[in-house]
Amino acid sequence: MSKIYVFGHKNPDTDSILSPLVYTRFLQDMGKEAEAVKLGTPSKEAEFILSRVWLQKPRRVDTLPAWSHVFLVDHNERNQTIDNIDELHIVGLVDHHNFGNFLTAHPISARVEPLGCTCSVLYRIFQEQGYTPGQDIAQLMLSAIISDTLFFRSPTTTDEDKRIVHELNKIAGIQELETYSLDMFDAKSDLGDMPAKELVLLDCKAFAVGATKFAIGVMETTNPGYALGRKNEILAAMEEVKKELGVEILLFSVIDILNERNLTFVMWAAEAQVVADVFGAETKENIADLGNRVSRKKQMIPQLTDYFAKG
Amino acid sequence: MSKIYVFGHKNPDTDSILSPLVYTRFLQDMGKEAEAVKLGTPSKEAEFILSRVWLQKPRRVDTLPAWSHVFLVDHNERNQTIDNIDELHIVGLVDHHNFGNFLTAHPISARVEPLGCTCSVLYRIFQEQGYTPGQDIAQLMLSAIISDTLFFRSPTTTDEDKRIVHELNKIAGIQELETYSLDMFDAKSDLGDMPAKELVLLDCKAFAVGATKFAIGVMETTNPGYALGRKNEILAAMEEVKKELGVEILLFSVIDILNERNLTFVMWAAEAQVVADVFGAETKENIADLGNRVSRKKQMIPQLTDYFAKG
Repeated sequence: MSKIYVFGHKNPDTDSILSPLVYTRFLQDMGKEAEAVKLGTPSKEAEFILSRVWLQKPRRVDTLPAWSHVFLVDHNERNQTIDNIDELHIVGLVDHHNFGNFLTAHPISARVEPLGCTCSVLYRIFQEQGYTPGQDIAQLMLSAIISDTLFFRSPTTTDEDKRIVHELNKIAGIQELETYSLDMFDAKSDLGDMPAKELVLLDCKAFAVGATKFAIGVMETTNPGYALGRKNEILAAMEEVKKELGVEILLFSVIDILNERNLTFVMWAAEAQVVADVFGAETKENIADLGNRVSRKKQMIPQLTDYFAKG
Repeated sequence: MSKIYVFGHKNPDTDSILSPLVYTRFLQDMGKEAEAVKLGTPSKEAEFILSRVWLQKPRRVDTLPAWSHVFLVDHNERNQTIDNIDELHIVGLVDHHNFGNFLTAHPISARVEPLGCTCSVLYRIFQEQGYTPGQDIAQLMLSAIISDTLFFRSPTTTDEDKRIVHELNKIAGIQELETYSLDMFDAKSDLGDMPAKELVLLDCKAFAVGATKFAIGVMETTNPGYALGRKNEILAAMEEVKKELGVEILLFSVIDILNERNLTFVMWAAEAQVVADVFGAETKENIADLGNRVSRKKQMIPQLTDYFAKG
C-alpha cells in the first residue's frame, strides 16, 4: 500500500493548509499511510489556528518523487497544483471549486460540492462514513470554514456551512465563535513589513481559459488601509509577478472583510478593459471599486471564465 | 427552480442510456423537475433492458436551449458531451471515468468513483441519502452494472459492484442473473445488417490529450466472427469516421465478451505504430491482437493517455 500525500493549492490559504491535515488524519484513522504536505507558506491566519492545537505542521514540498500517490484537496486547476503533477498518480480529489481542465489518466475518487469550504465537504464525507473527528481536527475544520466564508459574510456561504460549524463546535467547544473569528481575521491582517511581492502572491491563483491565462491575487483583511498605503510598491510588485506567472491578465483584490468591500489594483490598460467589460467598474488611479464582490470564486472567476471562454 | 436535463455520453452505451433514467427518477422523487435525454441511439442491449420495464424512453437531443441546467452522468470529456455545452449551466456530475480536461465556470456537485459502472456510484449516493429505488429502477441499475462490467468479467469490476448487484437484485428479483446477462449480451451482439459506419460509431469515444485527438470504437459482442466477416467494409468505414471526427488516431476494438479477447482493427501505419509502442502488439492484415484487454477504460485509455501526454 503506497503512502498518500495530501495537499492543497500553491500560495495556500487557510483551507489549503488545514484540509490536508484533516484528511490525512482521517486516512490514518482508516489504517492508511498518509502525509499532509503544503505547496507554499501558510498564512498568518493558518499559523494562528495551528498554534492553538497541537499538530505536526505540514512539510513544504515543491515536487514529489515520480509515481507518488497524491490526493488533491481544495483545488484541481493544473496551474495551482504541484509542479510535477504529470509524474504523479492522482488517487482522489475533494474540492469546492469549479473544474479547471482537470485531467487524470485513471478513474479516481472525486467529491466536489458547491459549499463554502473544503472542510464542509470533508465533514459530509465523515458523516456518511460514520467517522467523528477528534477535538483538534474539529477545531481545524470549523476554523477553515470560518476563514473561507469570512465567518458567513461571503456569498459562497451555504446553510450547510453554518450547520456544520455549529455541529463541529459541539466537539471543538470554542466559547465565543464571533470573538474567535475576529482573532483569526486580525492574525490574517497582521502582515508586518512583508515584501510587496509576497503580498501579491499570498493568495494568488492562476487560471487558464481557452487561450487566456489570468491570475487574481486576493488579500482578505480587516485593515484595507494597509494595502492602500503601500499602493505604489504593490503595483511595482505586480509588474514582476505578472511576468513570472506568464499571465496576460493580473488583478489584485483587497477585500475588506468586515465592511464587505472589494478594491482591486489595476496596473495596465488591458486589465482596466477587462474590469470595465466584466464588472462594469471604472479604474481610477489604478484602483477599481468592485463593490461587494468579496468572493473571488463566486463573484469574479465565473464572470471572467465566461468572458474569456467567449474569446 | 429550473428543470434539470440528465444525459450520458454521445454514442451511448447501456450505462449512458440507463443512468440518466435512474438519476432523473431520483431527482423527481426529491421533488425536482428533471428529464433524461440521450445524445444518440441506444444499443440493442439497452433496448432489450428497457423493453422489460415500463419506462418512458429518453428523448434524443443534439443541443439544448442556452442556459439549460444539465447534469452529466457517465462522462465528463468535452468531446463526448452535448455540442453546445458552453452555453449550458452544468449543475452536477456522477461518473466513473478518468477526468478529461473537465471545465466548469461555477463550482458544481461532482461525485466520481473508480467503480465498474455509473449506476454503482448512484447506488452509493442513494444509500447515503437513505433512498431506496423501486423495482423498475433497481432492474435498470443492475442491468447497467452487468453491461459495463461484462457481468464481472471486465477488470474494471470491483467487489463493490458485485455487492451492489446482489443488493439490487433483492429489489429487482431477477431469477437467474447469469441467463439474464447472456440474453443482454446476445441482444447487444444482434447487429443485423447495421451499416459498417454505424458499427464503428456504436460505442466510439473521442479523447484529447495534449495536442493529440484520438478515438476508440468498441464492439462488445458474443459473436466476434460477425465483425471479422465484415472487415473490409469496417476498414472503409473507419476511413470516413476518422475524417468526420477529425482525430489523428482511430482504433476499433472487437471485444469477445465470453472469451475475454480484444482484436483491434488498425487501418493505418500511424495506428500500427501506436499499438506497437503502447501495447507491444503487431498488426497483421489490419488486425492487432490486444490479448485480454477487454476494458477500454482501464486497459487502453490510461496507457494511451500516458503515451500522448509525453508527446
